[in-house]
Amino acid sequence: MQAWSLATRRAGLRIGLVPTMGYLHDGHLSLVREALARADRCVLSIFVNPIQFLPGEDLAKYPRDLPRDERLCESAGVDVVFHPEASALYAPDFSTYVEETALTGVLCGASRPGHFRGVTTVVAKLFNLVQPDVAVFGQKDFQQAAVVKRMAGDLNFPVKIVVAPTRREPDGLAMSSRNKYLDPEQRAQAVILYHSLQAAKAAVKIKSIAAGRLKDDLTEFITAAPLARLDYVELFDPATLEPVKLVKPGTQMALAVFFGKTRLIDNDRL
Amino acid sequence: MQAWSLATRRAGLRIGLVPTMGYLHDGHLSLVREALARADRCVLSIFVNPIQFLPGEDLAKYPRDLPRDERLCESAGVDVVFHPEASALYAPDFSTYVEETALTGVLCGASRPGHFRGVTTVVAKLFNLVQPDVAVFGQKDFQQAAVVKRMAGDLNFPVKIVVAPTRREPDGLAMSSRNKYLDPEQRAQAVILYHSLQAAKAAVKIKSIAAGRLKDDLTEFITAAPLARLDYVELFDPATLEPVKLVKPGTQMALAVFFGKTRLIDNDRL
Repeated sequence: MQAWSLATRRAGLRIGLVPTMGYLHDGHLSLVREALARADRCVLSIFVNPIQFLPGEDLAKYPRDLPRDERLCESAGVDVVFHPEASALYAPDFSTYVEETALTGVLCGASRPGHFRGVTTVVAKLFNLVQPDVAVFGQKDFQQAAVVKRMAGDLNFPVKIVVAPTRREPDGLAMSSRNKYLDPEQRAQAVILYHSLQAAKAAVKIKSIAAGRLKDDLTEFITAAPLARLDYVELFDPATLEPVKLVKPGTQMALAVFFGKTRLIDNDRL
Repeated sequence: MQAWSLATRRAGLRIGLVPTMGYLHDGHLSLVREALARADRCVLSIFVNPIQFLPGEDLAKYPRDLPRDERLCESAGVDVVFHPEASALYAPDFSTYVEETALTGVLCGASRPGHFRGVTTVVAKLFNLVQPDVAVFGQKDFQQAAVVKRMAGDLNFPVKIVVAPTRREPDGLAMSSRNKYLDPEQRAQAVILYHSLQAAKAAVKIKSIAAGRLKDDLTEFITAAPLARLDYVELFDPATLEPVKLVKPGTQMALAVFFGKTRLIDNDRL
């Protein structure tokens, strides 16, 4: 991978990277289009990164279908599908971690301690292996994009981080490989995440609202879906991820909701 | 710096990096020669990295003489002297650290908690800024070289880490910018570090020795220098930095000794 990348850069070509965990959907393919608009070559990595999963999470059963992913990549114009084995990225004596410390204590970082350390570590490794000029991340993972941006800037990686819009199913559910876990009833109710965002947007259009009040309303709204178990709903400054007291246009909203063991996330700028 | 480096690499030229804290001596210049033997261009960085100093250490008074350093670099054939300000490398909201977790709890890492996190973080930043093909470190900082090597491998930096031999004064004292702090009496006694290494080498040539016994003997030997205050003397496996029970040829020895506030280190393979 690295030899190809160094030679490609030496030839004066720009490399775009789309890091994924595979089981690709249209959301991923929209990131590929974004990468190809900004670079001469597109590398899509598929790696279910063990160190970003907590004990008890879905590492072992995370959906995988490499032949299908490769076909999708080929039709999307991906130049290289990079799918290393975990043992190739993590030697038995692996002991170095990249950790962002300011933006990772809240939201998904609070629910999944250690998760973002795994993310920033593997992204740093992928940057060094793929040597991209630009890397494209999805807006659906808002905190991940913010953390990766900060990490890349802090460590002076010569990589432009691009965040591309969330792609949605016709009913509004954000596309995610984890949607596959949902049974039909859960799938029908999962649209509650999108509806919550829409409800908050509509409310804020009328007037600014105390964050506590809006969270209470949204919590009630979400728990009205009988299969939904709210992990968090937060209203915060999109630059610092710090909670706001008064919600107004420009405030970022993010939420995480369990359906059975499946944890879904979504977010939007209000 | 990064623009020069990316253009230089694109031109097919190899870059060697010598990271330093400045106040250069012959030890540093031997690293430059090593870099120039392995690369087409040599970048020497001068940066007194605040995050690798602990509170109460010598950050503020660390010796600095940039004009002299630049003259030395020019005569040594250095192509670029890279001397960023601390504020250019650490934004007010800087929050990302690179941490090696297996090799940093012992030796200098035990005496200076947090020191190596500062080292690995700034070295990762320098690798990204200078984009070297090869980086040269001094053997005097044995643990630093081991930690940087592990970090570079774990994070897949495309950088070859070279460790060059310690340069010594005529009486055997390892060259160090911190030797400048020593008054004449301390300077005379500082050779005890080198003599300890020589004594251990001589002892091991005769027969293997229990580590505890050798440490006791060396402690007694060092404290015979009235101005010396031993920080540590350790006998360990050079690959894992784990202490050995039986000292034999191939065992690594390292020691740190204070003279007043000045902390000197040295090491050798026995």
